[in-house]
Amino acid sequence: MAHDEQLVARVLAQARALVRDEIATLVDRRRETGYGPLYDLVADYPLREGKGLRPAICLSAALAAGGRVDQALASATALELLHNGFLVHDDIEDASTFRRGRATLFADRGVPVAINVGDATNILSVGKLLENVSGLGVRKALLVLREFERMARESVEGQAIELDWIARGTFDLGDHDYVRMVYKKTCWYTVIAPLRIGTICGAPPGTGRPTDDELLGLVALGFHAGVAFQITDDVLNLVADEGAYGKETAGDLWEGKRTVMLLHFLRAAGPDDRRRALALLALPRADKAGDEVAWLAGAMDAAGSVDHGRVLAQRYSRRALDLESRVLHPSRADESADYRHFLREMLHYVIDRTL
Amino acid sequence: MAHDEQLVARVLAQARALVRDEIATLVDRRRETGYGPLYDLVADYPLREGKGLRPAICLSAALAAGGRVDQALASATALELLHNGFLVHDDIEDASTFRRGRATLFADRGVPVAINVGDATNILSVGKLLENVSGLGVRKALLVLREFERMARESVEGQAIELDWIARGTFDLGDHDYVRMVYKKTCWYTVIAPLRIGTICGAPPGTGRPTDDELLGLVALGFHAGVAFQITDDVLNLVADEGAYGKETAGDLWEGKRTVMLLHFLRAAGPDDRRRALALLALPRADKAGDEVAWLAGAMDAAGSVDHGRVLAQRYSRRALDLESRVLHPSRADESADYRHFLREMLHYVIDRTL
Repeated sequence: MAHDEQLVARVLAQARALVRDEIATLVDRRRETGYGPLYDLVADYPLREGKGLRPAICLSAALAAGGRVDQALASATALELLHNGFLVHDDIEDASTFRRGRATLFADRGVPVAINVGDATNILSVGKLLENVSGLGVRKALLVLREFERMARESVEGQAIELDWIARGTFDLGDHDYVRMVYKKTCWYTVIAPLRIGTICGAPPGTGRPTDDELLGLVALGFHAGVAFQITDDVLNLVADEGAYGKETAGDLWEGKRTVMLLHFLRAAGPDDRRRALALLALPRADKAGDEVAWLAGAMDAAGSVDHGRVLAQRYSRRALDLESRVLHPSRADESADYRHFLREMLHYVIDRTL
Repeated sequence: MAHDEQLVARVLAQARALVRDEIATLVDRRRETGYGPLYDLVADYPLREGKGLRPAICLSAALAAGGRVDQALASATALELLHNGFLVHDDIEDASTFRRGRATLFADRGVPVAINVGDATNILSVGKLLENVSGLGVRKALLVLREFERMARESVEGQAIELDWIARGTFDLGDHDYVRMVYKKTCWYTVIAPLRIGTICGAPPGTGRPTDDELLGLVALGFHAGVAFQITDDVLNLVADEGAYGKETAGDLWEGKRTVMLLHFLRAAGPDDRRRALALLALPRADKAGDEVAWLAGAMDAAGSVDHGRVLAQRYSRRALDLESRVLHPSRADESADYRHFLREMLHYVIDRTL
């Protein structure tokens, strides 16, 4: 069942453009009234054009709830800002040197400036959320703020779990450990919160709001979709060409990032290969030899680790598809049919890319 | 006019204890339901016991507005949490190795963990603010959130100004430049926002809220008091003994921090001394020679730079005292007289310490 690639591309491009305009307007306003040079840097990552996945999911959910794009636009923008603020900090934490084809902010401007720009970006996202008060009323604005707080909290907890693995050199991990970390670090802010926030924003004006059961259903959907997205990202990182994907090839191996594929290999490999892999992973990025990284990538493929990742991504995306048909109730309105089908098509995309 | 040292100490200790209990309870709750090891680190700085200045100002303002301590306690706690989150990031940005007599978090656990702990602390402060919804109602809760967003924004802008000075090696600055930076970086989150937030929380229940004029008057008061506090801190950093003050002696000179004293010296010194000072300041902390730092501290004293700081601190605190008597309207209730006099006595303390 091939996904509708054009629909996915169309929705992502639309959501990206809408949110980019919102961010540009907000940053311009801050530049005029505040300290301008800070906001030049705040605008850097968002205007490098990410995928726009989070805004697209948020807007889709608002339409599925029977609402309109404009009701969820401030929130979608805030999600994209927070995502970019996290990326600025993540790049320091992971010592990543490239982001969207260019030098990371900390590599370019130093750690102190990058920490502060990440903080400023997060604050800008809270400012954007406060615009919901006039657009949606105080109660919905507060509900969205609560979702944001929860989402950000889950993300830093997931990040803490991963940083602890790194600090302790822990590689003895099962799929379950990985999934728990990704649930917190990725699923909440990439899928669960965008779904829940979009649903809240799109609920009928006035006192309309989703029930607790509906919001819980979105946690399950967002969890399965988020794990599927993350594993697919990790698979593509391992097998894709530099040009096609915008990151260095096998960048995750250079960074020593725990992925289901790497963890599978370390469980499946014989003692010699395991020792060789762990010796490589223990080295800081700059000391890793390209030959050894290439060996590891090949050995993982040969050991069936990449297939293991593909199978898991498929399993999670099929479960998400099943949930999607039950917990989202696309509105019957013809307007914005693209948006209403977006999440389904994204999940089919994952299945197609990992077949 | 000697200040009432015991009153100041009493209020600080009370505010500190109240807020410390709130933070301990909140952190325990998060530890139980979330990823525990993260919250052990989040609790580190707050439980090292800072001065408690921000909570004390916030609670005082609530009482001056005719309210009660419990109305402002969640906000005072959030202010203290945000302060500590900023400190964790600031310590990385300033490469500070000691904080409250112990190793800074990043020196102890590395930059990645410290960035994430700072983020987690900031998120915790937003969570605490959301408790205002049940305690104060949705409208006041949102007003306080707005103040928080403004305060955080001013702080990162002030930080950006200072980081740009550092990145460019800018030392050619007047008192005016310094005061503008401190207004944003320090005054907003140390005095202005605590005053405004306390006043909002303490306003009569229901629709009661301070007028825009009242809130503007608090900006002026907080600005003058904040500059006075910051310059006094900087004077004490320069002249105090290690034991008495909890930081290294002349730590600001080791860090190359722009203070009104240092900037005055660079304007007042002859070309040879100026060149010698700039050569020292251009060195990274680890390359600075203790003898040269001691020379600079002595030369600044001899050039009247320390006196210049003292005079400025006095001027700002006297202006703040004048404003205080006009913009704060201490309630007539006998309860908590200490709190009502706290800010006045703090300003007298500044005057006494810098005489």
